[in-house]
Amino acid sequence: MFRFELLKKDGKSGARLGRIHTSRGTIETPVFMPVGTQGTVKSILTEELLDMGAEIILANTFHLYLRPGDDLIRDLGGLHSFMHWEKPILTDSGGFQVFSLASLNKITEQGVEFKSPVDGSTHLLTPEKVIQIQRNLGSDIMMPLDECPPPDVTREYAEKSTELTLRWLERCVAEYKKKEGEEKGVLFGIVQGGFFEDLRQKSAERTIAFDLPGYSIGGLSVGEEKSKTYEMLEISCSVLPEDRPRYLMGVGTPGDFLMAVARGVDMFDCVLPTRNARNGTLLTNEGILRIRNAEYRNDPNPASGSCGCYTCRHYSRAYLRHLYYAKEILSSHLNTIHNLFFMFDFMRRLRKAIEEDRFGEFASDVQSTYSGYE
Amino acid sequence: MFRFELLKKDGKSGARLGRIHTSRGTIETPVFMPVGTQGTVKSILTEELLDMGAEIILANTFHLYLRPGDDLIRDLGGLHSFMHWEKPILTDSGGFQVFSLASLNKITEQGVEFKSPVDGSTHLLTPEKVIQIQRNLGSDIMMPLDECPPPDVTREYAEKSTELTLRWLERCVAEYKKKEGEEKGVLFGIVQGGFFEDLRQKSAERTIAFDLPGYSIGGLSVGEEKSKTYEMLEISCSVLPEDRPRYLMGVGTPGDFLMAVARGVDMFDCVLPTRNARNGTLLTNEGILRIRNAEYRNDPNPASGSCGCYTCRHYSRAYLRHLYYAKEILSSHLNTIHNLFFMFDFMRRLRKAIEEDRFGEFASDVQSTYSGYE
Repeated sequence: MFRFELLKKDGKSGARLGRIHTSRGTIETPVFMPVGTQGTVKSILTEELLDMGAEIILANTFHLYLRPGDDLIRDLGGLHSFMHWEKPILTDSGGFQVFSLASLNKITEQGVEFKSPVDGSTHLLTPEKVIQIQRNLGSDIMMPLDECPPPDVTREYAEKSTELTLRWLERCVAEYKKKEGEEKGVLFGIVQGGFFEDLRQKSAERTIAFDLPGYSIGGLSVGEEKSKTYEMLEISCSVLPEDRPRYLMGVGTPGDFLMAVARGVDMFDCVLPTRNARNGTLLTNEGILRIRNAEYRNDPNPASGSCGCYTCRHYSRAYLRHLYYAKEILSSHLNTIHNLFFMFDFMRRLRKAIEEDRFGEFASDVQSTYSGYE
Repeated sequence: MFRFELLKKDGKSGARLGRIHTSRGTIETPVFMPVGTQGTVKSILTEELLDMGAEIILANTFHLYLRPGDDLIRDLGGLHSFMHWEKPILTDSGGFQVFSLASLNKITEQGVEFKSPVDGSTHLLTPEKVIQIQRNLGSDIMMPLDECPPPDVTREYAEKSTELTLRWLERCVAEYKKKEGEEKGVLFGIVQGGFFEDLRQKSAERTIAFDLPGYSIGGLSVGEEKSKTYEMLEISCSVLPEDRPRYLMGVGTPGDFLMAVARGVDMFDCVLPTRNARNGTLLTNEGILRIRNAEYRNDPNPASGSCGCYTCRHYSRAYLRHLYYAKEILSSHLNTIHNLFFMFDFMRRLRKAIEEDRFGEFASDVQSTYSGYE
């Protein structure tokens, strides 16, 4: 069961309020999905995620395929049971990580060959294989294999890459359909096309021709300048059907979320809140707080006076700073609780703003608070 | 307020059942005190400690004095408030850590001079200073400065050291008495005397002459052979008054606890359960489980089938092994939850065994389960 319900469209922007119904639970959109790379959202307990209001998490196929192995996870009852998370899980295809983390051997029509960063062994990810892996994991929302070229490739390369991604999508769909009836999960399509307007347009048009239950927008988390990124996002979204959820992959800051929501995006994942937390960078309604700073040495205030998270209810900035410098595990944990709580609260407020016809106002307040945060 | 209530003495051994009443809560003895070295029991949340039944924790004066500083903690309302722990805290004097962790410059009549492992700065801990630091922390049970010589020193050295510790105790008591009325905390004495029977005896006799509300037994966590250690413990305990709690410092394994309880010890602290957890070594009723081992690769069972802890209720050995190798923070957290839960459950069962006149039976069962675990 997978159904997207479009609840409301903002009158002045592309922002949408929606609800995704799945057999493992309902997801209010726009939604932020915390990243649980290796079968755990780093440092966080399942119950903490639920308390914060998490309705879906993302898991990384690349990491779980290499360790502990998708076959092992399948044999143990699937990823939900393995990691004690019963709500929906979205999995990526592993492709993006091959391009960003592994030592890439080659990209061929067949798929991508790479060396494992865990043990140096050689692996081949094909469109069929990534579906099989995600099936073994028990994914609720699967991604097809796509090529993620760097932002500075030539038009010729981008065109070839876009075509390859489309041929791979066709093979993913074919593999997916083999067991469609038995699956709980659905398969999204991914729009690529690099930073070329017409290729974005073509990629979106040919991807939606597969009539899939949702669409991802890929290739926009790679550090191109923001205005260009938003332009590519806008073109992609303009083609995508209104009645399917849209997922912008791996982006980004609260400011990015707003810009993307304004262009019609419904789903986000990003490691920024969790990674920043471990580095002592806290997101608050008042802006960015770097807990390492000397000024917080004996500061008795919570990270944010307006925050209701566990960390802010019980601990001072002085304590958080102490834990950070003492390299205590609790530092990562308390900071991550805070940053994730912030993100979920932020998305709740964002949804409420759309509901109450004041999304534009909300967005401009937030943009000024977070200017300069990348 | 500090009062020790001796509830029961075992008929066949020296084991005792007791209760320590403090203004911050009651402590059932024999008690295990988790170690919160730097203002946190590593990886564990306060609420988790409370759920497990923790009634007191230990904090390390040496670490907190160096970072973030006892003056800072005092200014922020004391250690309890700083670390969000309202139940009793026992603090050591810092002396043991100076001998084991710092680069020691010299021991003089005045105190111990050492170099900080944090920043290389030179510090002098005197008997007066360690009381002042513990007062700043807001300790409920303070320790006096003592010398902790290695187990292999000459009789001459041990004799001089025992005398020095006694002179330091006198100065600690004098410093403590300056503000006795304003304090919530109490000061224990520490029995030293190395591994010489008559020095142990003399140290115990002259320490109890100070008529303190409780006594610690020091110098026995230093790796001398077990039989010798137990002998020294027995001599120490035989001198100590029945109506005061006895605390064996920094020892040890479940087996050690039993041997010490049988000789009349009431209080224990040890980093073993928490440190072992982070190294993937789990304590269970069925014995030691090394989660790293290949045999657990795809093991769907919990760490212990007889354990009711959060970790065992939700996660398989395969998952714990995966987290360990993936170097996930959650690995330390889940393993520590398990090991601490085990320790608290173990102490509850131990107390119940004393209550029901079957301590000997309980002890021999446990000894065989944990033989070889050091």
